[in-house]
Amino acid sequence: MTTDTILNVALTTKANVYFDGKCVSHGFTLADGTKKSVGVVLPATLTFNTGAPEIMECVGGACEYKLAGTDAWVASSVGESFKVPGNSSFEIRVTEAYHYICHFG
Amino acid sequence: MTTDTILNVALTTKANVYFDGKCVSHGFTLADGTKKSVGVVLPATLTFNTGAPEIMECVGGACEYKLAGTDAWVASSVGESFKVPGNSSFEIRVTEAYHYICHFG
Repeated sequence: MTTDTILNVALTTKANVYFDGKCVSHGFTLADGTKKSVGVVLPATLTFNTGAPEIMECVGGACEYKLAGTDAWVASSVGESFKVPGNSSFEIRVTEAYHYICHFG
Repeated sequence: MTTDTILNVALTTKANVYFDGKCVSHGFTLADGTKKSVGVVLPATLTFNTGAPEIMECVGGACEYKLAGTDAWVASSVGESFKVPGNSSFEIRVTEAYHYICHFG
């Protein structure tokens, strides 16, 4: 099951632009105060650092990711999620636009 | 006054990607059913076609725009908006990321 729509959110209107636009996201807050973002990674290989732990939920396209300290590239596609520990990093390799929801914490 | 946050929306999780990522937006729907989008145009000169009339509200950065049938490039920056007729087009010239809300109709 893919999360196509998220109801009742407060949407931040200004985008977050990373790596000269290879990744763009918009932040939002749920009614209970939880902060998340929706975004897209365009074809590229990028490295993201994490503060809080993150769960990357794929809502379109696909990617491969490699968690810090591992050697394996793992595929993730629509409906699938992967966890990234806090204070860590992950590499992401994208050939077709990867659309995601980022759940923090 | 800039619209930093829009409350109580239903957010579409998959992004809209235009011109190989030079423009990325996320659509959302207000409680009354009105559809809008938030997006960013990265440095580029692009031409957009319109179906319904649009109002482009700047929430970050700046741009210059030229409506179809006119010769004048007009500047638009944070807090400012411009109207584009329906079934028309406009050119937009961006040197620093232009963040916007697109109001349709």
